[in-house]
Amino acid sequence: MPELNITGVIPPMITPFTRDGELGLSAHASNVERWNQAGLRGYLVLGSNSEAVFLNEKEKLRLIECTRNAAREEHLILAGAGMESTRESVHLTKEAAKAGAHAALIITPSFYQGQMKDEAQVNHFKAIADASPIPVLMYNVTKYTGINLSPGAVGVLSRHPNIIGMKDSSGSIPQLVQYQAAAAEDFTILVGTASAWYPALMMGVSGAIMALANCAPGECVRVQQWFEDGRKAEAEKLYRRLFPVNQAVTATYGIAGLKYACTLRGYEGGFVRSPLPELTEKEKGEVKAILEEAGLLE
Amino acid sequence: MPELNITGVIPPMITPFTRDGELGLSAHASNVERWNQAGLRGYLVLGSNSEAVFLNEKEKLRLIECTRNAAREEHLILAGAGMESTRESVHLTKEAAKAGAHAALIITPSFYQGQMKDEAQVNHFKAIADASPIPVLMYNVTKYTGINLSPGAVGVLSRHPNIIGMKDSSGSIPQLVQYQAAAAEDFTILVGTASAWYPALMMGVSGAIMALANCAPGECVRVQQWFEDGRKAEAEKLYRRLFPVNQAVTATYGIAGLKYACTLRGYEGGFVRSPLPELTEKEKGEVKAILEEAGLLE
Amino acid sequence: MPELNITGVIPPMITPFTRDGELGLSAHASNVERWNQAGLRGYLVLGSNSEAVFLNEKEKLRLIECTRNAAREEHLILAGAGMESTRESVHLTKEAAKAGAHAALIITPSFYQGQMKDEAQVNHFKAIADASPIPVLMYNVTKYTGINLSPGAVGVLSRHPNIIGMKDSSGSIPQLVQYQAAAAEDFTILVGTASAWYPALMMGVSGAIMALANCAPGECVRVQQWFEDGRKAEAEKLYRRLFPVNQAVTATYGIAGLKYACTLRGYEGGFVRSPLPELTEKEKGEVKAILEEAGLLE
Amino acid sequence: MPELNITGVIPPMITPFTRDGELGLSAHASNVERWNQAGLRGYLVLGSNSEAVFLNEKEKLRLIECTRNAAREEHLILAGAGMESTRESVHLTKEAAKAGAHAALIITPSFYQGQMKDEAQVNHFKAIADASPIPVLMYNVTKYTGINLSPGAVGVLSRHPNIIGMKDSSGSIPQLVQYQAAAAEDFTILVGTASAWYPALMMGVSGAIMALANCAPGECVRVQQWFEDGRKAEAEKLYRRLFPVNQAVTATYGIAGLKYACTLRGYEGGFVRSPLPELTEKEKGEVKAILEEAGLLE
Repeated sequence: MPELNITGVIPPMITPFTRDGELGLSAHASNVERWNQAGLRGYLVLGSNSEAVFLNEKEKLRLIECTRNAAREEHLILAGAGMESTRESVHLTKEAAKAGAHAALIITPSFYQGQMKDEAQVNHFKAIADASPIPVLMYNVTKYTGINLSPGAVGVLSRHPNIIGMKDSSGSIPQLVQYQAAAAEDFTILVGTASAWYPALMMGVSGAIMALANCAPGECVRVQQWFEDGRKAEAEKLYRRLFPVNQAVTATYGIAGLKYACTLRGYEGGFVRSPLPELTEKEKGEVKAILEEAGLLE
Repeated sequence: MPELNITGVIPPMITPFTRDGELGLSAHASNVERWNQAGLRGYLVLGSNSEAVFLNEKEKLRLIECTRNAAREEHLILAGAGMESTRESVHLTKEAAKAGAHAALIITPSFYQGQMKDEAQVNHFKAIADASPIPVLMYNVTKYTGINLSPGAVGVLSRHPNIIGMKDSSGSIPQLVQYQAAAAEDFTILVGTASAWYPALMMGVSGAIMALANCAPGECVRVQQWFEDGRKAEAEKLYRRLFPVNQAVTATYGIAGLKYACTLRGYEGGFVRSPLPELTEKEKGEVKAILEEAGLLE
Repeated sequence: MPELNITGVIPPMITPFTRDGELGLSAHASNVERWNQAGLRGYLVLGSNSEAVFLNEKEKLRLIECTRNAAREEHLILAGAGMESTRESVHLTKEAAKAGAHAALIITPSFYQGQMKDEAQVNHFKAIADASPIPVLMYNVTKYTGINLSPGAVGVLSRHPNIIGMKDSSGSIPQLVQYQAAAAEDFTILVGTASAWYPALMMGVSGAIMALANCAPGECVRVQQWFEDGRKAEAEKLYRRLFPVNQAVTATYGIAGLKYACTLRGYEGGFVRSPLPELTEKEKGEVKAILEEAGLLE
Repeated sequence: MPELNITGVIPPMITPFTRDGELGLSAHASNVERWNQAGLRGYLVLGSNSEAVFLNEKEKLRLIECTRNAAREEHLILAGAGMESTRESVHLTKEAAKAGAHAALIITPSFYQGQMKDEAQVNHFKAIADASPIPVLMYNVTKYTGINLSPGAVGVLSRHPNIIGMKDSSGSIPQLVQYQAAAAEDFTILVGTASAWYPALMMGVSGAIMALANCAPGECVRVQQWFEDGRKAEAEKLYRRLFPVNQAVTATYGIAGLKYACTLRGYEGGFVRSPLPELTEKEKGEVKAILEEAGLLE
């Protein structure tokens, strides 16, 4: 197994759609080329912010390939490959590997919530990791799934030879501390939301996959760089300045807000797929004002 | 558009899998042939109890075809065809129609919960109904989706010419009353859980899609028959006797419990797909005892 | 122990406050005298709709006495006497009995939610019932407490000699059926919300404590009367007509809405206590329109 | 208004009860005298961990007086004085001031959850602060109340001349950052749970009110001392070592667990009041093992 050093900033990339809802592959490639300049560690394709649940399998694989081709050699390509069933997750993970993904990010299954206890989760992740040709990371995102991986489950899973880490989007720093206490030493915990980014850095985390990195990649990289260079006050100040932007492009305005922020900053944000609603003109004005306030537009 | 008279009892059919997790089509056909004797109005293929979220598209279409072939002419075939995106839902609805479904049951999209407000839901269902060659029903199942369709949204959607009804699995009789007040006159509300079956009959509902009808189809049909024949005391008594069985095969033991109950009653329950866990031996004993207590095993 | 026949309609009385937030005892007495004409079975003083959590002990006892004095001999007086601690609940129950209450309604303790499991609830209610000079009823109101009494707990408690019934405000008819199956034969289940009133009547419940009976007492009594007289279609029709009013005076506009509806119908609604907000003028107009639509204002 | 410098560690004191449920004032005084040695900034009497909801007003005031008498001159005495109504909160705040409290901690009212929006909360806190002879702090404790004060509400309230701070027990560091951004400069945010203690220190918070400080006061003080002295690695290490103890005495075993931990460490833990259940012997063993593991028992 090649060792993957997953530190630094990774955007969970948006997926630009055309007005008709078609996959905008050239827009995506163009975005990747621009992100290539920003000092990012790599890319997550098919995350929650990628509207992965709206894509069929062919589209998913094309998007991985397109990313692989547009990214630089040194960029790490993570692909969301979790499905509700273990079987389909294994299938997609293998296909994602063929399409060029270096590692697979597997979301906790959640449809049958009442039955998706720790034991079921552990069996699911182990079976996928056993079968996967590439390393696996768990993806804990309670706001979308209603499921929260317990520190105990993370402890067990972190000791599987093909499970190298997890993305935790819960935003809970106390739980992050519990994950760290429970996990094996070489297990990588990535913070999954910019709102917890600087606190997580201070608690020893060194990688993040966060929506904000789509529209402010350079700024996110700088927070980490300054932090590592010992310029902590500056890093914290920048984190605090970016905070309202992060709220806007996640909690308040969702993916449509994130895409519009990307567009404002020169990326090809494109359209969302239905049933996600587009922003109203009023909401666009609000997003713009928040970016201006944070100094991201001049 | 042919008029579909959706009254009576419809099982949201289990999907039997082999020990290896393969789709058990012959087992399914054999179940349908047995259910054919029970006086059911028809079948729901690809509902929540069918583990539809674990199936790929090919398997879904095969299951519809298999059902269509095994059912009798007079049986109504409903197919779950809702996906997270409007686009994929339209695609699957069309394929389901080709495979023999008479109507499509569309679940509320829910992954991006914060954005899936009434307006998004209304637009989603309208777009699918506009494009669908077969009539459409909404599927409201809050325990799995976290989404509850408002009476207002139901009122609007009930007036779409290609939306003929809904399955409400919320179990809330007061909300059912609100749905009835809001809906157009020719709109059919189906109760989606046996726990609300008899109360719903008394509030004027005349159709039900309920897990219990997998393992006790004749008994469910009898409740309705007796109710319609004015033998209300007997109907209510039977409903109350079946109630604990329904709890067991839904809330307490989930789909694995339902499948085991089917097996106990002579159907081919088969295995669940991972990550759903199978029952333990102890749990199997408990399910058996509940069925015995209700007089379903002799 | 005198046998209390708790059937029929009982309003969980509003507590009118003056503009300055003082207890409006004369307004209250005047309301009771008016309610006396309506054919009600009795009164609940110090329920959730009475803003009981805003009253100190002296005020609570005065309100019971005032009610006792203004009501007729044949009216049953129930008093909310549950506090977070068993000890204070026992104390208040004894004082309520001295002040003239015939039975005590005890809410499930809920502050330490994580610890308030079935066993703690059972011990709490048993200890109060053991010590109480008057019969006790449990009060299950999940929307305010976050606690839901299980059918199992109800089964155990229903067999205590001094626990005669419960008020269930969950609105769940399926759970009502489970309560009925679990409870001792002479145990009385009262429905706690008008939205479930007619369905509950049809499931064999014969008493209700519901906010709506404050502003539409005669209408509520008529639903039950007609139901008992076999005029079911008329009873159901009236229930459905009142439904939107009930939504308005509970879920949508809360206690301020209920008080305003009472004022519109000639009662002394008075003011709410802070921090409950009063209705805006716009909201008052909406409440009025809903009452008009239901034919309650002419 | 005297300026209160609220930094450092403050235990939300347990309230020891006798086996019969009587208030154990001498046990309490003895605890305070021991805590006096530990370098704490002061004491919170009548917090959630004090079982304040189980005490009547007389008991509450006695407990404040007892604390005032047993504490040292330099200790700050905070008293929980929030009730569901504004009126009763004002009353208790005044009485608490007379009994010797330096400041009042006011919990968000929550019974009528649906109506307790930001505006109602803001009006409630303002009215209390206007009337209070002592400074006021808000208390945000979502796990008990279901209410979460928004950063916007905190921003407004932080500008009231008699509101000096808040205790935030949400445990959310991202929200803490938002509170800091919204609040006036001289507003003090105290972290309300030890699980967020060290991360909060790093984000600029300098005071904490946390259950753990009942049974490990010296250790909690040391975390802060070391942090302030620049011995951050040691501070963080101690925080991580104490973390499992904190989980045990809050989330897992609740107040009974906290009291038992206090007893194990030489304090007079006493009994809880009903309906809170005592620990089983098995649970006591588990708590003891967790304290041993953390090096708190030798």
